[in-house]
Amino acid sequence: MYVVGIDLGGTNFAVGVVDPNGKIVARTQGKTKVDDGPQAVAKRLSEAVNKVREGFQVSAVGIGSPGSIDHKEGIVKFSPNFPGWHDFPLCEEIRKHTNLDVFVENDANAYALGERTFGVGRGYDHLVCLTLGTGIGGGVITHGILLRGSTGIGAELGHMNILPDGPKCGCGSNGCLEALASATAMKRFVVEGYAKHVDSSLFSQKTPDQVTPKDIFEHAKMGDQFAISIFNKVVDALSVAVGSLVNIFNPQLIVLGGGIANAGDFLLAPIVERSKDYVLPTMLGTYQVKLSQLGKDAGILGAASIIIERMKDA
Amino acid sequence: MYVVGIDLGGTNFAVGVVDPNGKIVARTQGKTKVDDGPQAVAKRLSEAVNKVREGFQVSAVGIGSPGSIDHKEGIVKFSPNFPGWHDFPLCEEIRKHTNLDVFVENDANAYALGERTFGVGRGYDHLVCLTLGTGIGGGVITHGILLRGSTGIGAELGHMNILPDGPKCGCGSNGCLEALASATAMKRFVVEGYAKHVDSSLFSQKTPDQVTPKDIFEHAKMGDQFAISIFNKVVDALSVAVGSLVNIFNPQLIVLGGGIANAGDFLLAPIVERSKDYVLPTMLGTYQVKLSQLGKDAGILGAASIIIERMKDA
Repeated sequence: MYVVGIDLGGTNFAVGVVDPNGKIVARTQGKTKVDDGPQAVAKRLSEAVNKVREGFQVSAVGIGSPGSIDHKEGIVKFSPNFPGWHDFPLCEEIRKHTNLDVFVENDANAYALGERTFGVGRGYDHLVCLTLGTGIGGGVITHGILLRGSTGIGAELGHMNILPDGPKCGCGSNGCLEALASATAMKRFVVEGYAKHVDSSLFSQKTPDQVTPKDIFEHAKMGDQFAISIFNKVVDALSVAVGSLVNIFNPQLIVLGGGIANAGDFLLAPIVERSKDYVLPTMLGTYQVKLSQLGKDAGILGAASIIIERMKDA
Repeated sequence: MYVVGIDLGGTNFAVGVVDPNGKIVARTQGKTKVDDGPQAVAKRLSEAVNKVREGFQVSAVGIGSPGSIDHKEGIVKFSPNFPGWHDFPLCEEIRKHTNLDVFVENDANAYALGERTFGVGRGYDHLVCLTLGTGIGGGVITHGILLRGSTGIGAELGHMNILPDGPKCGCGSNGCLEALASATAMKRFVVEGYAKHVDSSLFSQKTPDQVTPKDIFEHAKMGDQFAISIFNKVVDALSVAVGSLVNIFNPQLIVLGGGIANAGDFLLAPIVERSKDYVLPTMLGTYQVKLSQLGKDAGILGAASIIIERMKDA
């Protein structure tokens, strides 16, 4: 038996047929084209599902979607990534076109389910996941339960406050984790610090707005002081967040995923060390911090795991 | 049918017989005398239970205890308040002396159960409780489940980091909520600020080490600038904490209890307002912040509610 996972983004989508071991046996992808409206997007996704499922016995479809989701009704309530979508019955629309059961979760929540079903969190009942990308998403499993919260929009770990007087966040607040440790934050540190650090090796071949998080990690490794200073801000913010999350959830595992986590042990090792400064002494030894191993398939696998989690409950 | 609740503290204990509506129909109290050793304390608590239960049909005993608790086995694993107690089978000892079923929870967790069973959190499945006293304790109910964490020591909300470069906390870290908004923190702000603010009305009749949190609130109300500056630090720290907790748990209700919360609306109103600066716009309108109404009986009622919660599960 196979399931289909849809990784739905504001720009692109990816669809995969996933076997029970988390192997993607068929896949396709496309442009979301949000401006065409929700019905058109649902039809496009359905066509991709119908194309990719050919030859496989598929039981159901899972969707990881950005935004505020009513997972019980299968509705996208609203999403900053999908202007004009309000209370759109995404699952029902795709069901019409595919004749398959369809379930949706917020993408960060789906990601956490994916880590538990197929990733480094396999088998854990107490799991905190951070996706470090353009923004910072969060997914929490506590006592085996996905923490959705009272209106389904919980686990917004990117908006834990880390530094009340810190930089402005996209959400309107100041000093959120996302304003300090996302790709967007790192790029902003580069642009804001350029005038003071024109001699930084970051700018030997690129203009400030061309510098990527990957560049920052590479130049920090090579000893560039400006790159190191940005790197340290990211490490400090993530260490504070990890410390607080351990004290709050007493988890077995914290997983760092998303593009920024591709920096690997260079990023992980100092976070593991510095976060100890913010963890209660009694909590030391009760948790681990690991990098996601799901890579670019995290979205499809997270979406597929929605179905697998539901089958466990049934 | 009645239950007995034991509010076990490092210095004093209180025992009450509680009816299903949360009315305490009989009560006693005493000195814990921790130095006598755990067996002697268990015997003392048992005698108090046996004395207070006379004439009532009691089904079971609940204990709210500080420290790290194995609630399944009824064991106090360790507690900073009980030096020398290690893996002490508190429930079994009291069972021997009373012939009653005995259950124990961490006191902050018991408090959260009490708010849900008898307090302003009645009927809520998504509830975050802070006890603002000498230290700051936390209790979380999410999706109807008490958040104990993987090793039973979770929900340490007093050790969420609020200000990474902030004052030293008793736990060894810096800038924990407890280091900024507990009674201990307020008193420390007074002592540390004394030299600069000798003219403050706080010191018209008291030396710095005599000033209480109550004094600080009263003098802040009367317009004393030093008292106001301490008050603002407490409000700011609690507002950041409330904001992050809303973004993390998407709760229906946040309850502020403990001695500091006796400051009432004077403390609550600015927290309700300023916390909005740290709450995601999508979360606004989804939660309330309220003061506990359980007063000095919160400990006994929380302990009693352990039994009532367990009867619901059974």
